[in-house]
Order: sequence, then structure tokens, then C-alpha cells
Amino acid sequence: MSVREAIWGEKAKAIEESLEEVDEDLFRYIRDFAYEEVLARPGLDLKTRELLAITALIALGSPKELATHLEGALRVGAKEEEVREAIIQSALFLGFPRALAAMKLFHKVLRSRGSSDPGEG
Amino acid sequence: MSVREAIWGEKAKAIEESLEEVDEDLFRYIRDFAYEEVLARPGLDLKTRELLAITALIALGSPKELATHLEGALRVGAKEEEVREAIIQSALFLGFPRALAAMKLFHKVLRSRGSSDPGEG
Amino acid sequence: MSVREAIWGEKAKAIEESLEEVDEDLFRYIRDFAYEEVLARPGLDLKTRELLAITALIALGSPKELATHLEGALRVGAKEEEVREAIIQSALFLGFPRALAAMKLFHKVLRSRGSSDPGEG
Amino acid sequence: MSVREAIWGEKAKAIEESLEEVDEDLFRYIRDFAYEEVLARPGLDLKTRELLAITALIALGSPKELATHLEGALRVGAKEEEVREAIIQSALFLGFPRALAAMKLFHKVLRSRGSSDPGEG
Amino acid sequence: MSVREAIWGEKAKAIEESLEEVDEDLFRYIRDFAYEEVLARPGLDLKTRELLAITALIALGSPKELATHLEGALRVGAKEEEVREAIIQSALFLGFPRALAAMKLFHKVLRSRGSSDPGEG
Amino acid sequence: MSVREAIWGEKAKAIEESLEEVDEDLFRYIRDFAYEEVLARPGLDLKTRELLAITALIALGSPKELATHLEGALRVGAKEEEVREAIIQSALFLGFPRALAAMKLFHKVLRSRGSSDPGEG
Repeated sequence: MSVREAIWGEKAKAIEESLEEVDEDLFRYIRDFAYEEVLARPGLDLKTRELLAITALIALGSPKELATHLEGALRVGAKEEEVREAIIQSALFLGFPRALAAMKLFHKVLRSRGSSDPGEG
Repeated sequence: MSVREAIWGEKAKAIEESLEEVDEDLFRYIRDFAYEEVLARPGLDLKTRELLAITALIALGSPKELATHLEGALRVGAKEEEVREAIIQSALFLGFPRALAAMKLFHKVLRSRGSSDPGEG
Repeated sequence: MSVREAIWGEKAKAIEESLEEVDEDLFRYIRDFAYEEVLARPGLDLKTRELLAITALIALGSPKELATHLEGALRVGAKEEEVREAIIQSALFLGFPRALAAMKLFHKVLRSRGSSDPGEG
Repeated sequence: MSVREAIWGEKAKAIEESLEEVDEDLFRYIRDFAYEEVLARPGLDLKTRELLAITALIALGSPKELATHLEGALRVGAKEEEVREAIIQSALFLGFPRALAAMKLFHKVLRSRGSSDPGEG
Repeated sequence: MSVREAIWGEKAKAIEESLEEVDEDLFRYIRDFAYEEVLARPGLDLKTRELLAITALIALGSPKELATHLEGALRVGAKEEEVREAIIQSALFLGFPRALAAMKLFHKVLRSRGSSDPGEG
Repeated sequence: MSVREAIWGEKAKAIEESLEEVDEDLFRYIRDFAYEEVLARPGLDLKTRELLAITALIALGSPKELATHLEGALRVGAKEEEVREAIIQSALFLGFPRALAAMKLFHKVLRSRGSSDPGEG
């Protein structure tokens, strides 16, 4: 299974088609370099990598991309509690407003799991 | 053992005295809230927490505080390879300049381990 | 009166219930540490604290949390002119795009005062 | 032709009226200092200036202002390919999430050109 | 007295000469637009403006410019306690690492007052 | 000539050896992906790419990496005036403190050209 399939799950095909439509070259870099080269590296399990991605995206304040990796973390085996802890801890380093916005988004992701789509990419 | 002792190791006493001299109240919040309340929470092991701290500090671009947690990650059991992976992955989310600056700092931390002091706080 | 009641005003109960539903522990830290411990400190009046909060939130680019404190500043006694000056000044340090986005949001907050709800948290 | 007319095109009048309603003084600074003093300086052509503006706005993560300058870049003569290259390159320095969000926005701008309005100011 | 003289105090002449040598046009914008037009506006006293500047510079993580305004705040009448409170509060919004770095810098500014020069511009 | 040789000039060998010592994999990504794949793309000339890199690095506030690309911009044909304009313009989007810090660094780069080394990587 590719890293993309592990993280994007059943949405993989839809996300890929959508990214490819937006820009073929950027999509190719995201697929071949970001996901299948760097995130696929050994030395750190995918669950830890997704928690790190969540922290980086809280720092950036990018809600759509954060939603993708909040879902991705759960798909690759992170427990809800672990994601909550990563978000709560981010308040110490990145401030409460960023942590709170991330937790609200996670709340939304949890409610929509199995039904609709809170984000992509 | 307190979380501070686990992360700061043999430097704990020196760091505490230095922080207390800088500002007693801010030191108290860092000690009692940041370290012994939030970082001490169950649900995520201290090694993962330190890798998340590293990612957040790469995002902030704060070299002194980053050095503290690069050392702290090693002290609480992260392998050198795991820290390297966390830094390399940060390039995807936060850009190569931030990842490269962090890796140079980690290189410096590794060389100075057991001898001098590349950072604090 | 608690600091939360002073800043959140008539929305305090709704905001608290909403935050508590999102995450009980993060809500508790926001309530007991952020609002009733740190923002409640003497040495700086609440109006100045809210203007500082506005500047920090312009820097973060967090519109929902910014809306809360734009309203909060007015509730604790800041004049409309003072809030405008804090926003205009932020252009010097944080750039015109951030200042302009904040001013548009303040314009929206002013129009909706007494009627609807442009933000929370 | 003023720099504003060159960048804002047929939307110039609507944008100016909207900004003036939001805050007269901030509008005046944006018009007289940002656009007609700094962006109007010789030494760098307006196309390059708009590509630089796009990079700065990707860094800030400000979608509305970014949309304005994605459109502006095309208006002052940047080719679609040049804008795509500026966005792709930003992934190296600012990370893939920011670059991807910008490319999605540019995709939207391209589709709406000549019909509706994806942003202002 | 100009706003520059109020904020830069006895260093005004040295700072101006240094800035002018770096770039005449940028210096002119900083002097005529940033200091004598925007910071000189009525509606907010200079002490509050300097506390807002400190918050913005903590967000940016710019130590030299932050040192200038930590000193400037004291020069225009802020009490040491007020500056400390502005820094402590910033931990809530911008995270503890940024607040701690700022407090260490303020500690250094306080020790060097009347003797040496911890920053400029 | 590789993109690295064009941008790094006579320092290319020293920079490569230094990066390789810091981390072989991260160096390889910077060399093969960042420089020779993305920056080497057609569609935008190297001079414009370096001005965009400068803007991104002003946004990040990364002085060492910024120094590399301030020098790089001059090496690939940017005139001193063009670099100054890119820096001055950044004040509008990223604030005066960031622009001023960048201009001071450029001043230093200009003075040390042909003699010593203000940065790398």
C-alpha cells in the first residue's frame, strides 16, 4: 500500500484526481517526493509522522490541509486521545488560538467520520 | 522524576536558576503549567512529545529553545535517526530553509553532547 | 465578574458550552490558565490587554479568535477609534494584508453588534 | 494609468469604494503609500513585483489578498505559466501545504476570470 | 519632539545615521511614514503603541527590532511591570518559546540600560 | 552549469561539503529536488526565482539562508537596485522590521563581496 493510500484512505482516488486537475507538476511532486519519498522513509512510523504533520499544520494555520492529516492520523492508527494530546500540547508552543482552532476542526472531523468530507489535500 | 528533569537532564538546576532570574512568574508558568501540567499529561509518551516540540520550534524558527528540545528528545529516549527524520519531514511542511537550519543546529548539538552547552530554556 | 464575563459579555455562557463540548481539558486550560490566571493579572488594564490580544491575533491571522477579541476590546471599554488605531499600526509591523483583513473583520463586527455573531472562542 | 488601475483592472472602482467604506485612513495609506509610492517605484517591473507579492502572500497565508494579486499578476502581463512557477517554487521555501492552497486558489481564479470575483483588496 | 526622539531617545542620531547608510529610501519610509505619520497618529498614546509594537515583534521573532521597542516602551513611560505583563501575556497567544525569548531579551535590556546598547532600528 | 553553481558560485564546493556533513539525505533532497529539479524548471528565469526566494526568506526571517540568496541573486544577474526594490517592497506585505533586517543583511553582503562570507546554505 502506498503512503497516500494509508493516509488518504478511501478518499485517495478523489484527492488525486482533484490535485492533478489543479496542477499536474505540483501534484507529481506531492505524490512522488512528499508522500512516497519523504513520508515513506523508514526510521519513524507513520503514526508519529502524522502527529508531526498535525503540529506543523497547526503552526501554519492551514485548516484544509490540517483536516486531511487529522483524518490521516486516525487512519494510520493514532488514537483519538493521541491526536487530542498533540493538539493540546501545541498550545504551549504555538499559542491557545491555534490550538483551539485545531481542536474545533478535529471535533468536526470526528463528527463527520464515515459520513461527509471536511477537507482534502 | 519531574518532566523538567527528564528533558533538561543534568542542566535542570542551571536552567531553572537562569529562568527564575529572568522572570519569576513566567518561570513559574513554564514549570508548573507547561512542563508539569501539560507535557506531563498521559496519552502520549515523552519521546513523541519532544518530537512534536521540535516540529513546533522549527516552525517558530527559535534556535535556543529548539536546541533545548533537540537535546531533550535524545535524553527521553529518541534515537538520533528519529530526530533526523522529524527534521527532514519538516521540510515538506515548513520549507527547506527551516529544516536545514534545524539540522545544522542538531549537528552542533550532537557534536557538543557531553562537553559544552548549545542552548537552554 | 470573571475576566471571561468581561470579555465575552452576554455570549459567555454559549462560548463556554461550545468550548467544553469541543474538548474539556483544553477548555479548562483556556478558562483557568489563559483567562482567569494570566489575563486576570494586575499590572496592565484589561483594555490594554485586549488591544495586545488583537495585535497578536492579527499576527497569527486567526479570524475567529480575532473577532472574539475585537468584540472583547469594545466590551472592556476600548473606543472604536482605539481599536482602529491598533489595527492601522499593525500594518507597520505585520504588513498591509494582515491589517486590511483585520479592519474588514472589525467593520463586520461593528455592523453586527447587538444583532448577530461574527465569531467565538 | 495608476498602479491600482493596472493591478485591479476593471474592479478598481469597486475595490476602492469597498476599502474606503471599511476605513478611510487605512485605505488612504494603501492607495497613496503602498500602491502609488512603493509599488510604483522604478527599478523593478510591475510583473516581477506582482510575483513577489504572490510569494509574500503565500507566506502569510492570506487567501483574499492572494487572489487579488494572482489576478493582478495576470493583468500586468504575467503568463499563467509564470504564476504557476512562482507558486511551485514557494513549496521549497514555505512548504507544500501553502503552495498547494495557493495553487487551488489560482485554479479558481483562472476558472472565474471574465465571469465572477474570487477576491478583493 | 518627534516620535523617533521619544522612542529612540539619546540613540536617535546614531540610529538614523546607521539606517540612512543602509538604505536611504527605506530609511525615509521608516522615518516619514512609519514613525512620523502612523505612530504619530492621535487616538492611542505612545506607551500603548509601544506595547503593541512589542507584541507584534514577539510574533515576528525579530530580536534586534524588539530590543529597540523594549527600550522605547520604557522611554515613553511604560513601567517595567507593564512591559513584563505584555510579554507574559504573549505566551497565551504566541506560545511560551517566543515569550521566554522576549523576556530574556528584556532582562538584558534592563541590565544594559544606561551603559551599553543591546539593539537598534 | 548546474543551478547550484549559478547561485552559489565559487562557494559551491564548500557549501556542498558542509551540507553533506550535516545530513547526507537532506543535502541530497536540497541538491536534487530543490535546486536541480524545481529551481531548474523553465518558465521563470533564475534572476526572478532568486528575487522570489529572497521574499520567501524575508517572510521566514532566516538570515543565513537569506544571505545565500542575496548573494545568489547578484550572481545570476540581478542588479543591486533590483534586490533593494524586492526588499523595500517586502515592507508592504511583511512589515518594516523584516524588511529592515533584510536590508541590513544586504548591506553586509555588499560590503563583504569578494572578501569574506556572510552566510551559506
